[in-house]
Amino acid sequence: MKYVENAWYVAGWSSEFTDQPLKVTLLETELVMYRLTDGSVCALRDLCPHKLLPLSMGRVEGDTIQCGYHGTVFNATGHCVRVPGQEIIPKRQCVDTYPVFEQHNIVWVWMGDAALADTDTVFDLPQFNDSNWQAHQGDALHIESNYLNVAENLVDPAHVSFVHPTTLGNAQSEDVPVHVNTDSEQITAWRWIRDAPPVGFFKQLGGFKGHVDRWHYYYLHMPSTAVIDFGSADASLAIAEADREQGMRIFALHFLTPVNATHTIDRWMHIRNRAIDDASIGDRMNELFRIAFDEDKVILEAIQQQETRIAESDNPGPVPLRLAIDKGPNEYRKRIEHLLHG
Amino acid sequence: MKYVENAWYVAGWSSEFTDQPLKVTLLETELVMYRLTDGSVCALRDLCPHKLLPLSMGRVEGDTIQCGYHGTVFNATGHCVRVPGQEIIPKRQCVDTYPVFEQHNIVWVWMGDAALADTDTVFDLPQFNDSNWQAHQGDALHIESNYLNVAENLVDPAHVSFVHPTTLGNAQSEDVPVHVNTDSEQITAWRWIRDAPPVGFFKQLGGFKGHVDRWHYYYLHMPSTAVIDFGSADASLAIAEADREQGMRIFALHFLTPVNATHTIDRWMHIRNRAIDDASIGDRMNELFRIAFDEDKVILEAIQQQETRIAESDNPGPVPLRLAIDKGPNEYRKRIEHLLHG
Amino acid sequence: MKYVENAWYVAGWSSEFTDQPLKVTLLETELVMYRLTDGSVCALRDLCPHKLLPLSMGRVEGDTIQCGYHGTVFNATGHCVRVPGQEIIPKRQCVDTYPVFEQHNIVWVWMGDAALADTDTVFDLPQFNDSNWQAHQGDALHIESNYLNVAENLVDPAHVSFVHPTTLGNAQSEDVPVHVNTDSEQITAWRWIRDAPPVGFFKQLGGFKGHVDRWHYYYLHMPSTAVIDFGSADASLAIAEADREQGMRIFALHFLTPVNATHTIDRWMHIRNRAIDDASIGDRMNELFRIAFDEDKVILEAIQQQETRIAESDNPGPVPLRLAIDKGPNEYRKRIEHLLHG
Repeated sequence: MKYVENAWYVAGWSSEFTDQPLKVTLLETELVMYRLTDGSVCALRDLCPHKLLPLSMGRVEGDTIQCGYHGTVFNATGHCVRVPGQEIIPKRQCVDTYPVFEQHNIVWVWMGDAALADTDTVFDLPQFNDSNWQAHQGDALHIESNYLNVAENLVDPAHVSFVHPTTLGNAQSEDVPVHVNTDSEQITAWRWIRDAPPVGFFKQLGGFKGHVDRWHYYYLHMPSTAVIDFGSADASLAIAEADREQGMRIFALHFLTPVNATHTIDRWMHIRNRAIDDASIGDRMNELFRIAFDEDKVILEAIQQQETRIAESDNPGPVPLRLAIDKGPNEYRKRIEHLLHG
Repeated sequence: MKYVENAWYVAGWSSEFTDQPLKVTLLETELVMYRLTDGSVCALRDLCPHKLLPLSMGRVEGDTIQCGYHGTVFNATGHCVRVPGQEIIPKRQCVDTYPVFEQHNIVWVWMGDAALADTDTVFDLPQFNDSNWQAHQGDALHIESNYLNVAENLVDPAHVSFVHPTTLGNAQSEDVPVHVNTDSEQITAWRWIRDAPPVGFFKQLGGFKGHVDRWHYYYLHMPSTAVIDFGSADASLAIAEADREQGMRIFALHFLTPVNATHTIDRWMHIRNRAIDDASIGDRMNELFRIAFDEDKVILEAIQQQETRIAESDNPGPVPLRLAIDKGPNEYRKRIEHLLHG
Repeated sequence: MKYVENAWYVAGWSSEFTDQPLKVTLLETELVMYRLTDGSVCALRDLCPHKLLPLSMGRVEGDTIQCGYHGTVFNATGHCVRVPGQEIIPKRQCVDTYPVFEQHNIVWVWMGDAALADTDTVFDLPQFNDSNWQAHQGDALHIESNYLNVAENLVDPAHVSFVHPTTLGNAQSEDVPVHVNTDSEQITAWRWIRDAPPVGFFKQLGGFKGHVDRWHYYYLHMPSTAVIDFGSADASLAIAEADREQGMRIFALHFLTPVNATHTIDRWMHIRNRAIDDASIGDRMNELFRIAFDEDKVILEAIQQQETRIAESDNPGPVPLRLAIDKGPNEYRKRIEHLLHG
């Protein structure tokens, strides 16, 4: 399938990269990535042009990587510097390389035209550098579903009451309308559930006794980074929308890596404004996130199975029907189409 | 592939259906089925038109079923009665439904034009309601083969000596010619093996000491229900063909459900005129049937593998060669072709 | 895919063939093979023309084989000699047969035009019948890779230093140039590594203390038989190329059977001029060969995965880049192309 190539994608957490070759697949393209002697990370196409053996099956020597079949050696800019047994190195014996950027313990790769790779456009959030906030890493969740299905789910507050009834949602929000704003770079969908019992997450981790005001703000950045700003505050405070800081506030971040048409990696983490010195709270949050995101995974994989089944069938199958509650997902699909086909 | 749609197909034994959603696949179409509060069974297309999640992953509430993704609710006639978070329900937010009929602990579904669904045409046998006969349920045998291969096997007495030498056949029948009648709605193939040792089945369950007259009548009803009337009587009685009642007589019933082009469910059971109050005899019969039908399964799956292999090959492959002993199967294929293409 | 059909292919070691039916797949064609009462081996297409059941699921009776479905009987020339239940046997009820030749405990089958099957062209080596040499059978190694990839690897001395650093190669040979001769029926690639430490194989089995002269001669016979003449001699002897007999000399034989486009069986064995009465030495050699050939298998299967991935992708993928060290493999591909397309 076609992907948005001129974009930064997450290749992994920083901890995944060492001086050993690591195969990473993005947009159906296999890369081999490793750390150079200066500590930076490089990315080469994971394919020796000679016999097509993945370079990740070879070995890193200093800043170079040697193919495991005939010992051909490439440097980090993709140039071949040695062919054992022959003196002339053909020009075509070279491999593609990709811009890499590392920040906040996250490694990004630019998959399109290298001349357009601007590191200023890599996703960032001021709270990463704010000592009143604590970042806490989660997992790399593999989901057998197209990244478009996964991304849609992350700008869709309407599913929370039904898919996550014990953690992130409850019956009080079932019919609360969703607001959507499509005026800026990111798509925003949000709603407030005022003066209702806290959901499981905040009951367990927020220590709320009575009713709370609860908010969910979904920000979807193109092509595949989602920020969910959610939290709760004591209902008696009746805080304004802009004063979410006064409650317990969490940014759940999702970095989606499209592996292929039916496989996405969702690397998730959070940043919070409470218990910032207590790592155990972060771990307990992750436990609840795991429950919730596994609930999404089941749904998203079932949908993919239907889409695949319909696509492989001889008969033209049904296409998803868009409802009013899909304003955010609809805008997202439209923007992706625009990025792909102008 | 194309199937005969205007027909009743077995969706399951009655015991399989409860007030929980059950996914049932017929003719490559996935249905969700459940019992309504009045005890009857309904069948809906197992696909929420919104995001294509199978409705069987949601939950039944009274007579309705709620999608597990966004909480959309459908009633048993396929109409959407609620979309949480929005007031207007689009007309296209509805699902197909299918006529269902339950009789003799068997649930049938009509897969074609509902206006043509006539419950008088559902397969029946007078012995179901005759107190001199006892019905006994068998298994739901999954066979990885096209239903046409399975059905052919059930109007084909010639294979019995070779595939079932220890249970339903023996060497005495190897060269006994087969009669075939194609004059009525069902195709009939039959033969008598007179004055020969009993086969394993009747040796074990009929208590015959000396030679017997043995008969096999295969009745194949379109598109996929088979009745095998088989039995034995003491050879000294020399019974007439019409007097099979005087021997030990069994109707083995096979209800074939085409799941997809390479997967068929064979739900089998029997009705017998001996030991009708002794359920243990029915269980012992089932044990022998299991041995015999597993022998068929091995053959039918091997044939399917060849057919699939040939179909997927670049080279045009061999097509099965029809012999004189195939008169029943040939007529069956011809009738299916006629039902499909007129 | 297309294969060279007018050629002898190894169907198995002699020990694999008995009076029981054996399914053997060559060039995507399934054969059933068994020994006749005179001890010779026959090969029939493994497909009853009636219902396409593999004949290998039936049973051998004397020189004939009976189908397991309807009892049809075929003789070793492929003619049907019995159809139970009917008297006339249709002419088309027959199966293809294939010429078979057995020699040196190896069974060969000719897959093309039987009129061209000349047993004088079956691969042979004088050492098979020479009492100064000892033949020792190895394994049937299944490799999930196209036979062209496997065969290339067997006329490619350049990979040995990198793929087999602990057994058949070492760093001393990395940059030693390869000679290639394409003037005769077989393609020959060879090199000598003079006055260097022995490789693991000869260190363990040759008892060499000091430096040796080591040779590798790769002979590739069309379409898929490889002979590797390799050995070592004390460097102080400074033997001539023609005097390899004076050292420890081994012929490693590889008989490649193309099963299908991504599956090859490599039946390998060796003939040696040392320790010819000590079978345990042969076994120890096999242990080292197993290590080395498993190293090839990993590489060849990874390459096949890339080729398959590229072939199934929507985007035109890279094609292997030929280097100067590929002179042998290049010639091989050219000759195969010529055999296929003239």
